[in-house]
Amino acid sequence: MTGKKRKPGHGTAFAGRVSNRDAERKKAPRAHAEAAGGVWLYGLHAVRAALRNPARVVRRAVLNERAASEFAKDLAHVPSETVDTDALARLLPPGAVHQGAALLCDRLPERDFEEILASLPPGNRVVAVLDQITDPHNEGAILRSAAAFGIAALIVQDRHAPPESGALAKAASGALDIVPRVAVVNIARALEELGRLGFWRIALAGDGEAPLAEAARAGDIALVLGAEGSGLRRLVRERCDIAAFIPMGGAMESLNVSNAASVAFYEIRRNTPL
Amino acid sequence: MTGKKRKPGHGTAFAGRVSNRDAERKKAPRAHAEAAGGVWLYGLHAVRAALRNPARVVRRAVLNERAASEFAKDLAHVPSETVDTDALARLLPPGAVHQGAALLCDRLPERDFEEILASLPPGNRVVAVLDQITDPHNEGAILRSAAAFGIAALIVQDRHAPPESGALAKAASGALDIVPRVAVVNIARALEELGRLGFWRIALAGDGEAPLAEAARAGDIALVLGAEGSGLRRLVRERCDIAAFIPMGGAMESLNVSNAASVAFYEIRRNTPL
Repeated sequence: MTGKKRKPGHGTAFAGRVSNRDAERKKAPRAHAEAAGGVWLYGLHAVRAALRNPARVVRRAVLNERAASEFAKDLAHVPSETVDTDALARLLPPGAVHQGAALLCDRLPERDFEEILASLPPGNRVVAVLDQITDPHNEGAILRSAAAFGIAALIVQDRHAPPESGALAKAASGALDIVPRVAVVNIARALEELGRLGFWRIALAGDGEAPLAEAARAGDIALVLGAEGSGLRRLVRERCDIAAFIPMGGAMESLNVSNAASVAFYEIRRNTPL
Repeated sequence: MTGKKRKPGHGTAFAGRVSNRDAERKKAPRAHAEAAGGVWLYGLHAVRAALRNPARVVRRAVLNERAASEFAKDLAHVPSETVDTDALARLLPPGAVHQGAALLCDRLPERDFEEILASLPPGNRVVAVLDQITDPHNEGAILRSAAAFGIAALIVQDRHAPPESGALAKAASGALDIVPRVAVVNIARALEELGRLGFWRIALAGDGEAPLAEAARAGDIALVLGAEGSGLRRLVRERCDIAAFIPMGGAMESLNVSNAASVAFYEIRRNTPL
């Protein structure tokens, strides 16, 4: 389903759904007055995906000559400026790896979870649920892997997820504009709803009761990932059907959470191919 | 084998091996005059692993009270100071996530590749070969996954690998002091040597000829990973026995390289368990 055309969600059926934008507005630092309510995205992959996402409102594109030439076809309906690389860098946070391209965008419209799921045939839908993973690089890398493995949606908790940002979008390498990201108030309640919808809910945990290859099965699956360090909260884990571990055997007990997500997506897609 | 006691290498049999230290000294920025020839490591996992690595020379430990108490047993033979968190932060690069603990260390002694391999029984040895992956966060995450999956060694190219640094060690979460890291002059020659030693050399590439699960086999394996963007160099790929891809099926064509490494280690360990 990833990469499909989509439109802003209108439904309100999913328990606990809130406006992603409102939650982020409160938290996001405003590096630049002009970006109020918006966000600077940068990097070739992130910019390309945003320009090609019909749901993304681009206010302003700022590109060096090379990027302007590369994106010429995508810029037809976007106010754009060609500048030198130094001028571009001054618009962005220090150290931002912009590769000559940046967009000032509106944040993405909120998404309706049930509408997303309804647009996909049941039987091989996989969603990832992130329980308070707050690092934008980790969530970005998970988005990127989610797009690669055709994950239907990422569900995050609105008050304990990174706001939509240039760093998140850069780590996602375009996937922020491909994989639907739904912010909910209460992860445990979202898992109850997924259970009612027939999803097999797998909590990933180092002390899980079964290896992931045994815990995964054909059908719709919700994979639940906790923050590094603290792990899954008890109430979240209790809403899952099984807790599974990744067999490793080496000298470390845990993977980086985005690496764990990638391995889990890979294993799950062995049983539920697209 | 990871986590074993080890000593500095003395052999010279491995073609192209050079002093890791010398190469890094030339490249590493000296943030602090005192660190000349050395490196500041920080973060609880990185500091714990360094203190417990018999091959690691620690010149100075700087800890807040909480960390000093946690590491009390490990500090018996190390000059240590207990300071407040602000004083600690001033010793380190801006933004370093030190968690109250830092060590000024010598860089690790060079390792002898053949000695490392000889210490492990043949049949399920897996090594990872990194072809010009220069991002310390990516290599650090790969080291962490390598430790988790019991990978015998990482082989990097001395002039195109990140120097040993606090950022690398932090991303590796201790694995820099667990997984042997060998710097060679010429990756293609190292692959020839691995072939002579009986390793099945798998190049990971999006346009590979077989899915990884088919390309992997029981026995000693060398997994070869290229840089994001440029990918594997032709001469490196030509030295491999097979090029394999990770089946994904989604809207993105590639994973972050550390995520790809994790998935590949997982798949390879299915066939060649520890």
